[in-house]
Amino acid sequence: MKVLVVGANGQIGKHLIKFIQEDDNLEAKAMIRKEEQASYFQEHDAEVAIVDLEGEIEDIAKAAEDVDAIVFTAGSGPHTGKDKTIMIDLDGAVKTIEAAKQANVKRFVMISSFDTTREAIQSAPESFAPYVAAKHYADEWLTATDLDYTIIHPGGLTNNEGTNKVQLAEKVDRGEVPREDIAKVIAATLNNDSTIGKRFQVIGGNTPVEEAVQSI
Amino acid sequence: MKVLVVGANGQIGKHLIKFIQEDDNLEAKAMIRKEEQASYFQEHDAEVAIVDLEGEIEDIAKAAEDVDAIVFTAGSGPHTGKDKTIMIDLDGAVKTIEAAKQANVKRFVMISSFDTTREAIQSAPESFAPYVAAKHYADEWLTATDLDYTIIHPGGLTNNEGTNKVQLAEKVDRGEVPREDIAKVIAATLNNDSTIGKRFQVIGGNTPVEEAVQSI
Repeated sequence: MKVLVVGANGQIGKHLIKFIQEDDNLEAKAMIRKEEQASYFQEHDAEVAIVDLEGEIEDIAKAAEDVDAIVFTAGSGPHTGKDKTIMIDLDGAVKTIEAAKQANVKRFVMISSFDTTREAIQSAPESFAPYVAAKHYADEWLTATDLDYTIIHPGGLTNNEGTNKVQLAEKVDRGEVPREDIAKVIAATLNNDSTIGKRFQVIGGNTPVEEAVQSI
Repeated sequence: MKVLVVGANGQIGKHLIKFIQEDDNLEAKAMIRKEEQASYFQEHDAEVAIVDLEGEIEDIAKAAEDVDAIVFTAGSGPHTGKDKTIMIDLDGAVKTIEAAKQANVKRFVMISSFDTTREAIQSAPESFAPYVAAKHYADEWLTATDLDYTIIHPGGLTNNEGTNKVQLAEKVDRGEVPREDIAKVIAATLNNDSTIGKRFQVIGGNTPVEEAVQSI
């Protein structure tokens, strides 16, 4: 299965490319913004597509033409300017979803925020609410399509080394999780069609990733 | 017809309240954020509802319980912080749409931006694109409902005195239009059910407002 990773140059993206390339079933195509970012992916023998997520849907669709699945893990993050929150976290995600449709790529894995419900928008601190809202609308856009989607809602992301163990369910208590483990969860999700049409939260835990994802 | 005006304390909103109260068919309920804003509306004998658009859907729905139509003319404007662009122009609009559904108010008039198409997002200057995107998603959310909507796309808004004359069509050349004339267009839209399910652009022109709106 060939997978277009949108946001490949991000921290989760880089782990993910590595895990995909190590997996016999999976093959990565890294979508990145600038040629200068390519060396990491070339070192991992991953194909590269240079596309600006703030550009046209058609450019993303072209990068998606020869893949079987798309992972959206791009993110302005909660601490950049709110203009990027709209243009990347919301509009970039929606354009990627539309590109998937155009390129007839059915499988779509979205890396969301831990809780993107209406209640989460309303109860978020004022500085964080716009990010939650942007992710909410991206998730809403995806679930309204007939794509084979999975939405992953990670807890607080850390740069700790991965443990390959998580707690994963539709609803879990808020907690932290290493980015490396989220990348593992994404790879396992791509390998498990039982995750299609599902959304789940993930934090650090005691269950091996494969087993946790299969249980969904 | 009783009309809840969301964003009544804005410049278009204030003109609109005046025109609604002068119209024998219409009756205004002004939704404003703070008690201190109430005097203008009381002077125009308009009912007032104090609701924060950044609050709960239920609060907006409660204000909408006894009305026949809702006009959304709230706006952070293109020059406020982009956090408010998400929380007011997009999320505030969506919450108002959801409140209309909850309160069983079918008629909904949205004041949008001149061009909220995908093409307009892509071609907008970087500082303006997030605003266009936010309005795009609000419009998309509305057109996906089964509400009796009209979306008004005004040209560049000025504070010039109204002329009661406009150019109005699905697509017109970009141009300016006084806020006072947009308020007249909104009132005429509320009085013309032929505008239901339609969206149109408005700039200054030579056709009397009533006639222009009836021609849609």
